[in-house]
Amino acid sequence: MVMQYDGTAYHGFSRQKNAHTVQAEMEGALSATLGERVRVVPAGRTDAGVHALGQVVTFRTLATLPAPAIERALNARLPDDIVIVEAAEASRDFHARRSARRRCYRYTIWRGRQRNVWWRWYSHHVPGHLDVYAMRQASRLLIGRHDFRAFTTGAGKDVRPGRSTVRRVDRANWTEEQDFLYFDVCADGFLRQMVRGIVGTLLWVGRGKMPPTAFADLLTGAERVHAGPNAPARGLVLMQVEYESA
Amino acid sequence: MVMQYDGTAYHGFSRQKNAHTVQAEMEGALSATLGERVRVVPAGRTDAGVHALGQVVTFRTLATLPAPAIERALNARLPDDIVIVEAAEASRDFHARRSARRRCYRYTIWRGRQRNVWWRWYSHHVPGHLDVYAMRQASRLLIGRHDFRAFTTGAGKDVRPGRSTVRRVDRANWTEEQDFLYFDVCADGFLRQMVRGIVGTLLWVGRGKMPPTAFADLLTGAERVHAGPNAPARGLVLMQVEYESA
Repeated sequence: MVMQYDGTAYHGFSRQKNAHTVQAEMEGALSATLGERVRVVPAGRTDAGVHALGQVVTFRTLATLPAPAIERALNARLPDDIVIVEAAEASRDFHARRSARRRCYRYTIWRGRQRNVWWRWYSHHVPGHLDVYAMRQASRLLIGRHDFRAFTTGAGKDVRPGRSTVRRVDRANWTEEQDFLYFDVCADGFLRQMVRGIVGTLLWVGRGKMPPTAFADLLTGAERVHAGPNAPARGLVLMQVEYESA
Repeated sequence: MVMQYDGTAYHGFSRQKNAHTVQAEMEGALSATLGERVRVVPAGRTDAGVHALGQVVTFRTLATLPAPAIERALNARLPDDIVIVEAAEASRDFHARRSARRRCYRYTIWRGRQRNVWWRWYSHHVPGHLDVYAMRQASRLLIGRHDFRAFTTGAGKDVRPGRSTVRRVDRANWTEEQDFLYFDVCADGFLRQMVRGIVGTLLWVGRGKMPPTAFADLLTGAERVHAGPNAPARGLVLMQVEYESA
């Protein structure tokens, strides 16, 4: 299923004890619809406050209800800030996370002098001067296979023996639209909070706190402490997940 | 001052007892900033749930704080869903409501098959078929001076002896942008809930429930009962207010 959500009210996608999560809402609605306990697997485990316009989830069921009927029943049960936009049967070996070949995220910055009341939950407000040219220069360095260890938080998850912190980025660019500034980035996969770490560091570059050449030095497995702080979750959206034959 | 707000959390602009209103927030922040009781006058008294991107308010004060300082202090005090985008001193006889010559509103309809999680507070979801051509035909009839009595709710306010229900509309058109449908309307003034009444009736036209010719008959002071229901407040935004020499 392809789904969208406004992550503002959620403690992220993944189920946690005593927390409001997208997974708990989804599994509750699915279990009620299908009459059996269902577990969903997402393509990306988005953090608290992060949004999705193209999240993909898979689940297994013994129920024989056709996909369009499941979609309708779920949308009637789910809260207003979650919606299923597509549901289809998949082959038995298709897995939302493991079968994914490419993920794309967008980070939105609002550069207006004053806060944007409508986009306040969907953008990060950066009112001062930004050297977008330098940010673009640094972003181009992201393209290719690099060790992104410097940009991930929650070391226990991704930085451990047997787990690689190398990823292949094949798109990374900034576009301006009036007072909005968008960072679009696609890769074969992302480490925990990697996009937010990259954006926070590129904002250092934009503010003249780090030259693009120093940014290059971070792409060879540098320690987290050398990179900038995570940009806030609210600006981040999982836009699209791509699969081999989809 | 020119201000913007997300009206979702408010019981409209105008101060009411025991209700969360934009006016109460504004006057509270202004009084705290200026150290005296201040009353604000808005160009348009938006209803509960209605938004503004270009509301104009005036107030009088004995304080000598310059306008930019007032703007900064207010934005620091106001909640995240209200913002002052411009503040300037005006002449003594300038009045946000009485001096206004033209007001423009936009109504946003989301036509996607599924709900839009991001725009859910800023649009009205109409998933079925709409005959936009017929809606445009009917909208053109709005241009000019007409008696809009059929489109106003809350009769006690606008429909009473000595008060005219005639207004001059000089713009009324629908534009499509992907699955969004926008209705932009400008007039010298609007009756209470007039835009929402017009949109609700034009949706009747779009659904084939009313021919554009019958819509014409409503523009000569017909009773409210002949027009369609009010479209929901969430889709409506006060976009702009124009003044003689501004």
